[in-house]
Amino acid sequence: MKKYLKVDPWQIIEEQFNAENHKSSESIFSIGNGLVGQRANFEEDYSGRTLQGTYVAGIYYPDKTKVGWWKNGYPEYFAKVLNAPNFIGIRIFIDEEALDLAKCKVISFRRVLNMKEGILSRNFLAEMPSGKQVEVTAIRFLSMAVPETGAVRYSITAVNDGMEVRFVPYLDGNVVNEDANWDEVFWDQVSHEIKGNEGYLIAKTKKTSLEVANGMLIQAFCDGTEITQPPLNAERSGYVEASYTLSLAKKSKLDIYKYIGVLSSLYHSGGTILGDTKQVLKKAAETGFEKMQEAHTARWRGIWEHSDIIVEGDEEAQQGIRFNIFHLNQTYRGDDPRLNIGPKGFTGEKYGGSTYWDTEAFCIPFFLCTAPASVTRNLLLYRYKHLEKAIENAQKLGYTNGAAFYPMVTMNGEECHNEWEITFEEIHRNGAIAFAIFNYIRHTGDHAYLIDYGLEVLVAISRFWSQRVNWSGEKMKYVILGVTGPNEYENNVNNNWYTNTLASWTLQYTIETIELVRQVDPAKYNSLVNKISFNDKEETARWKDIIAKMYFPYLESQGVFLQQEGYMDKEQMTAAQLDPKQRPLNQKWSWDRILRSCFIKQADVLQGIYLFEERYDTETIARNFDFYESRTVHESSLSPCVHVVLAARLKKMDLAHRLYLRTSRLDIDDYNNEVHEGLHITSMAGTYMAIIEGFAGKRVREGRLVLNPQIPANWKTFAFKILFHGCQLKVTVNNTKVIVKNESNTSVEVIVFGTDYAIAGNSAIDIMRN
Amino acid sequence: MKKYLKVDPWQIIEEQFNAENHKSSESIFSIGNGLVGQRANFEEDYSGRTLQGTYVAGIYYPDKTKVGWWKNGYPEYFAKVLNAPNFIGIRIFIDEEALDLAKCKVISFRRVLNMKEGILSRNFLAEMPSGKQVEVTAIRFLSMAVPETGAVRYSITAVNDGMEVRFVPYLDGNVVNEDANWDEVFWDQVSHEIKGNEGYLIAKTKKTSLEVANGMLIQAFCDGTEITQPPLNAERSGYVEASYTLSLAKKSKLDIYKYIGVLSSLYHSGGTILGDTKQVLKKAAETGFEKMQEAHTARWRGIWEHSDIIVEGDEEAQQGIRFNIFHLNQTYRGDDPRLNIGPKGFTGEKYGGSTYWDTEAFCIPFFLCTAPASVTRNLLLYRYKHLEKAIENAQKLGYTNGAAFYPMVTMNGEECHNEWEITFEEIHRNGAIAFAIFNYIRHTGDHAYLIDYGLEVLVAISRFWSQRVNWSGEKMKYVILGVTGPNEYENNVNNNWYTNTLASWTLQYTIETIELVRQVDPAKYNSLVNKISFNDKEETARWKDIIAKMYFPYLESQGVFLQQEGYMDKEQMTAAQLDPKQRPLNQKWSWDRILRSCFIKQADVLQGIYLFEERYDTETIARNFDFYESRTVHESSLSPCVHVVLAARLKKMDLAHRLYLRTSRLDIDDYNNEVHEGLHITSMAGTYMAIIEGFAGKRVREGRLVLNPQIPANWKTFAFKILFHGCQLKVTVNNTKVIVKNESNTSVEVIVFGTDYAIAGNSAIDIMRN
Repeated sequence: MKKYLKVDPWQIIEEQFNAENHKSSESIFSIGNGLVGQRANFEEDYSGRTLQGTYVAGIYYPDKTKVGWWKNGYPEYFAKVLNAPNFIGIRIFIDEEALDLAKCKVISFRRVLNMKEGILSRNFLAEMPSGKQVEVTAIRFLSMAVPETGAVRYSITAVNDGMEVRFVPYLDGNVVNEDANWDEVFWDQVSHEIKGNEGYLIAKTKKTSLEVANGMLIQAFCDGTEITQPPLNAERSGYVEASYTLSLAKKSKLDIYKYIGVLSSLYHSGGTILGDTKQVLKKAAETGFEKMQEAHTARWRGIWEHSDIIVEGDEEAQQGIRFNIFHLNQTYRGDDPRLNIGPKGFTGEKYGGSTYWDTEAFCIPFFLCTAPASVTRNLLLYRYKHLEKAIENAQKLGYTNGAAFYPMVTMNGEECHNEWEITFEEIHRNGAIAFAIFNYIRHTGDHAYLIDYGLEVLVAISRFWSQRVNWSGEKMKYVILGVTGPNEYENNVNNNWYTNTLASWTLQYTIETIELVRQVDPAKYNSLVNKISFNDKEETARWKDIIAKMYFPYLESQGVFLQQEGYMDKEQMTAAQLDPKQRPLNQKWSWDRILRSCFIKQADVLQGIYLFEERYDTETIARNFDFYESRTVHESSLSPCVHVVLAARLKKMDLAHRLYLRTSRLDIDDYNNEVHEGLHITSMAGTYMAIIEGFAGKRVREGRLVLNPQIPANWKTFAFKILFHGCQLKVTVNNTKVIVKNESNTSVEVIVFGTDYAIAGNSAIDIMRN
Repeated sequence: MKKYLKVDPWQIIEEQFNAENHKSSESIFSIGNGLVGQRANFEEDYSGRTLQGTYVAGIYYPDKTKVGWWKNGYPEYFAKVLNAPNFIGIRIFIDEEALDLAKCKVISFRRVLNMKEGILSRNFLAEMPSGKQVEVTAIRFLSMAVPETGAVRYSITAVNDGMEVRFVPYLDGNVVNEDANWDEVFWDQVSHEIKGNEGYLIAKTKKTSLEVANGMLIQAFCDGTEITQPPLNAERSGYVEASYTLSLAKKSKLDIYKYIGVLSSLYHSGGTILGDTKQVLKKAAETGFEKMQEAHTARWRGIWEHSDIIVEGDEEAQQGIRFNIFHLNQTYRGDDPRLNIGPKGFTGEKYGGSTYWDTEAFCIPFFLCTAPASVTRNLLLYRYKHLEKAIENAQKLGYTNGAAFYPMVTMNGEECHNEWEITFEEIHRNGAIAFAIFNYIRHTGDHAYLIDYGLEVLVAISRFWSQRVNWSGEKMKYVILGVTGPNEYENNVNNNWYTNTLASWTLQYTIETIELVRQVDPAKYNSLVNKISFNDKEETARWKDIIAKMYFPYLESQGVFLQQEGYMDKEQMTAAQLDPKQRPLNQKWSWDRILRSCFIKQADVLQGIYLFEERYDTETIARNFDFYESRTVHESSLSPCVHVVLAARLKKMDLAHRLYLRTSRLDIDDYNNEVHEGLHITSMAGTYMAIIEGFAGKRVREGRLVLNPQIPANWKTFAFKILFHGCQLKVTVNNTKVIVKNESNTSVEVIVFGTDYAIAGNSAIDIMRN
């Protein structure tokens, strides 16, 4: 844990330069617009420790797989989001000495991420070895309004003496990934072009042949007067620069504007991408920095309008939740079903930028509440588009008849992960994809999605489950052997309760959906039956048999669902009994010792109770929660949020609040000493869930929105907006009451504290808290 | 399976050249002398598919580990036996055209491995593109008598026309491993030297700084007259050559002798190695090819005298068993406790040439019967010398109090393997090391070994078991969770019967050994107690408690020991029910499917019954054998031999013989289509076990040798010699009787068919078979 940032409701503020913290800050201050994202690398050269990172959505490289011992079924490659060409760079020389914060005396330094407006800024006063002092103010953003553009304004003031300043804006495609399995270079340079103040670079990924075009257009002003002298240009493969030299008198100020275009072959063909980049850039420069910034911040206003959570009385909590909401919106726009959300978003290389079940289990609940239905629909379509590959993936593992097995980690639908106990055995992900469809439908009522896409996915997943179970002659039950549950601290177990529960539910939901679609749109249903050669009667009969005879391990003596068979043979301890020096276990214990222990990495049985809470009475939930929470070490960033939801459900608000703080400020306060690698983007959605489903007790039951708000002891108020079946509601909770305002024009039915309210369009209800 | 070699009792014969078979033949025709070994690569250049392989005992490189996802406790490197400098090379040019069997017309070709004498020879008639024909006869050996030397005689006859011949003997250190994780070069070139007909090369391994010196000394004769013209020398880093050109008249014959020295820093210091190489080489050349060959073959006579198994009536079986015995003796000499036996010996790169539990479980039973006790003692000392590192290894995984956990794969005592389910969980290997001590003692009576070394290892291993078990409150038993048994087709299981059995036995044997040593040599016992801080009373009390309360899974309904908990939840099938197209499973099924299936890779419960057979009555053995043999797919080369022993024990001789054929000719007939990668050296010892312990029914019971010979239906006789407590016995078995001849001077007690015989020195008994 590291607390060096100032607490502020809307900003992240670093008030002095400490090279030790720089890599962490590079992650925390990352900016992005869903199409492009980047770490908060400095514009000027920096010779200290840094992780250079610029990422373009959908641009990846299939890096050669690295395994110790090959297993049948392993994938050939691991897709990696690429560190893309550097477009922010501006090299600065003062009297021909490089400005480099690792080598100057940094007299003052302030870095600010303005989350309200999506602006990264930096101001510092540095003294060169010569004694000359320069003040720099750098502001940049990646436009939310025109996502292929961005801009930097880099201002230099000669503080205590006149000086010769040479500044060299450049584009550099000769970049590498730190995480390259064989230290390969992933880019081929296609072309470069520089003329005066305008430069272009096109790079293409090896193997995948994805293109990224970068453009820069430079304008500079000395004390407000435009510098018209033409720069010196230099170029080489993958690199262009424009070098300007001028004398800067004492107290004078130089303003450099670097307009940026970043276009990719996702939206532009190789033939037109250079011309398109020139056009985009021309328009940006014509618009000008201020107007671009205005349009950008206006977009952020719109985003906050939908998605903000206001917390009064706890500034740390306020900053934490906004930080999470901010980064989620920077990572995913929701307008392109080819894109998804990597666990680190655009803030680092770890996890390869690929898609995990995080999206369905954690991100979708966030976007369902805060964004138009189309955003979640696109996340579902992403999986629909991968259905064919999921079927191929299943075939590789021996499944037949159109069974689909979605990959654990993927960029384009193909499996990229290569640990057998996860790749082949963490099969509950297939259930998460089914559940996400259900979750989307209950929030939006979009039955058309079910008819056109959802049912096809559900049948394919149910076919998987129906082949994945086997009949145990010993138990006279269906069993699911050899799986890894969400608790990855135990592998290759038999009858993981969560997996069995989710499998059985999927079969049931698919059967119900078949009924629905058959009734609502028999023509489409029949056409689907033909398309996928669905033997309705036989297949659903088997599914029903599985549902009826599925085995669910249960621990009679404690009245709890048993995480997996054999769990009680482990030495039983609670996390509280662990020597704190032994934690986190994943850094202190060998893997086998972790596997043998009773300690749980993240919600597993409790994940199932979270998903299907309505099935269980409060006592059952409490018994399971007490049993498993005491054994959970929360060493996944995805863990605490589910526990918050259940703790709040059980009115254990102190515990809920304690766990909430950990998840909401996980990155800002660097709980796990790893933020330098990037942010935990997908778990940020869990933080949102913690407030909305935890504190506010939001549920959907039988098509209606349910709220059971509570408030942490030290909070005065919290308020948020939520989208439900197309209506926007604003919910405000304080110590005495709950106000629900219907901001849409149509009436909405909401159940608050168990009472059913019909709230008319554009009106509100006030409910006293009990 | 591929049968292209001629059946012959003493030779392996390939009668025509087929480039498709060449890599396989390179493995099968490998030669070695325990210090150096090499694949049967051609002396002349060959541009076809080949795996170049020359290996020097104990010379390894710690290759950077390759894993997909790092786990705590993984080792940093994977030790690899290195492809060492090529010393056999003789490049041949006919009228300046390279002789290359991939490019000539090969009119006739015959390759012979004479196993009786340890000679590899090759004769071919090739037609150059010019139409000129050359006949080549190449003979080579690596001397068993003077192990740092070897020699090649390479003879060329101009068959149908005169020709200019240029021949270029060389030494080449610029060699690589095919199996290099990051395509690194593993050697640094230290020095090279060439003058006339003598050349030297010294290469040093990177990181480990192990040196190998190679020397060559060339003599050549044209029709018997020595060629005295000095050759042209060429040299560069890691390479020296001597190039000779002469006119060879039609029908004339050129004989090239290449004397070879191969010395390593295991036996020579960097300062003297070059001088030592020169001396060794000088002596070799003075001795001359014929005399060197005589001394070499004399050694082989001695080896066969002890270790041969004669089979009459089944030439395939005869060739198979000799092939196995031959290669085992080529791989391990037994005079250096720093060396061990890699699964592929000196015949390929796979498994890195490192030590596995194969040595204790399979090779030691072979050497105990066929070689002086010192040979096995050195294999035990190898592990004793690694005890400190095994304790460190255990510490890394969280064990304390001097518990030792021997590595799964090692070169120098450090763990090299990096799959958690094996590295951390295949813990039964620790028991195999304890059992090997017991096995050695019962064969040799060498109690001094127990006192000086054995007990210390046993205590350290027992300490491991005592920490590795945990108490199950559910079962009220000690359990061993999270292990992989010998059946690697199931991982991370609980209570593997074999592992629990071996653990419990180790504790018991250690307690007995403590009693023995305490009585026999109390002073040494006390000094050991001090050395290892052994709390005799407390520690053995816990061990006794574990022995008394260990959990052993049992399947009541079938009356068999259960391989592991949950095994009966799997879909039960027999291997015979499998579609043959699905086999071998490890090539046809994905890993998870294999893990979920009931199919067993190699003896697991049956391995335990094999080790502790005397505990079980015939009916119990039969029930377990029938149950598990029917589910075993024998996809490890180490599997069939144990089944042969038990099948013979149960008088299922047809099955025993069928399984025997598979193991004895596994490589010659390439059952698994993988012999091109190298030979299954360690499983060859299993083949020996199959005859001696299977067909001959050899056991040791209460200090006495037991024989219960049977003979396969198609065999007339089989005969072998066996060492027991220092005495050599010759056993001959035919259809009517068993003859046991005591070839030593002292009387030996032997139990044959249940009757106790005392056989006086140098006399024999004849026993009619019942």
